[in-house]
Amino acid sequence: MNGIEVIPITGLGEVRPGDDLAELIAASDTEVLDLDCLVITQKVVSKAEGRLVDIDPDDPLSHKPLVERESVRILRRRGELIISETEHGFVCANAGIDLSNVERGQAALLPVDSDRSARGIRDRLRARHGIDVAVVVSDTFGRPWRKGVTDVAIGCAGIGAIADLRGTTDALGRELMVTEVAIVDEIAAAADLVMGKAKGIAVAIVRGLETDWFGRGSVANEIIRAPADDLFR
Amino acid sequence: MNGIEVIPITGLGEVRPGDDLAELIAASDTEVLDLDCLVITQKVVSKAEGRLVDIDPDDPLSHKPLVERESVRILRRRGELIISETEHGFVCANAGIDLSNVERGQAALLPVDSDRSARGIRDRLRARHGIDVAVVVSDTFGRPWRKGVTDVAIGCAGIGAIADLRGTTDALGRELMVTEVAIVDEIAAAADLVMGKAKGIAVAIVRGLETDWFGRGSVANEIIRAPADDLFR
Repeated sequence: MNGIEVIPITGLGEVRPGDDLAELIAASDTEVLDLDCLVITQKVVSKAEGRLVDIDPDDPLSHKPLVERESVRILRRRGELIISETEHGFVCANAGIDLSNVERGQAALLPVDSDRSARGIRDRLRARHGIDVAVVVSDTFGRPWRKGVTDVAIGCAGIGAIADLRGTTDALGRELMVTEVAIVDEIAAAADLVMGKAKGIAVAIVRGLETDWFGRGSVANEIIRAPADDLFR
Repeated sequence: MNGIEVIPITGLGEVRPGDDLAELIAASDTEVLDLDCLVITQKVVSKAEGRLVDIDPDDPLSHKPLVERESVRILRRRGELIISETEHGFVCANAGIDLSNVERGQAALLPVDSDRSARGIRDRLRARHGIDVAVVVSDTFGRPWRKGVTDVAIGCAGIGAIADLRGTTDALGRELMVTEVAIVDEIAAAADLVMGKAKGIAVAIVRGLETDWFGRGSVANEIIRAPADDLFR
């Protein structure tokens, strides 16, 4: 059909610090194939990597000092909401720290380097199981001007973050003006459509992507816009 | 599999002013089913609705006066780039006007009311062909802080723009903190993954979405954030 499929991975179980996500995915109920792109939510990556911090379970604001600590620049504040830039260069609410789907009394921080997290999972699946996949680590961000949140990529491996259409022509033979598509963000968004937050689906497969998108990639290097080039910072 | 499929619609042909997109889609090579969500790119909606304006084909900046005219507020300028708010409330580059995939010497404006455009296509498919689908009109926007463009929804019908998870609990039984997912934007992003800009694919089906997402919906009413509520305007 030349289309793509988005398939939830079930049977992963609750992820705990020290767990090996590559092994959990290989042992799940869902078969993973070469040239699949695995989308793994930040929450389980952070849990597996032990990026959990104790907070006061009776104080709904006890994670706020963590937000300040994990931020390199505060962009906006309104009431309890803080929009800040993290050390990774992500601009998001509460420095990406959240309390949903973690145990009461804990908060999950972003992975230190989500590209590296993605690369580790990809490398282990290839080395131990002979499966050659791309990996995207996704998180849920708000955005200015538009209500609602969407999932975006915070790390990737085995796939270019941006598909560069520069030099190609449109269907009428004119050179394209909009050329750089953030495909890893579109892949993260597509995966979220099967990950209803309450269902406990933390990993999905996006199958059928263009084979020439596979290869080296990095969210940090390709997606993060330098502050000097940014009109809204 | 409880997953979703994204299927490109082929054989649509070149769209011209006055064309009936519902009829073109019904006559295409791809079968459309009840509870499919059709994603239709703005460009073909604008063409079918005759939202084309003549510009000087030898002047690469001849559409810039149109950008000013179609904007209600200029947010940023840098060189030739204008980020503005359109009368619809969209914040995007060049007021959504672009020149790719239109004939040389023409520019395509955004539809006047993309929710209405979506509703018209949905209503005609149901009335004449007995197919009950949702429709999303998509366009390609940049965003602050992150490089690359992604497709988002500028109109919808037959599906809620936002899936409200308020009141539901996460997999550990805690009340969810992030509650409003902009599913129409995630659907538009998923569809773009099969719409390589140079292939001339202008419509895709997203099949297998949660059935309880279907119903009344509007990008204008649900997605557009009021300037007073916006921290970045």
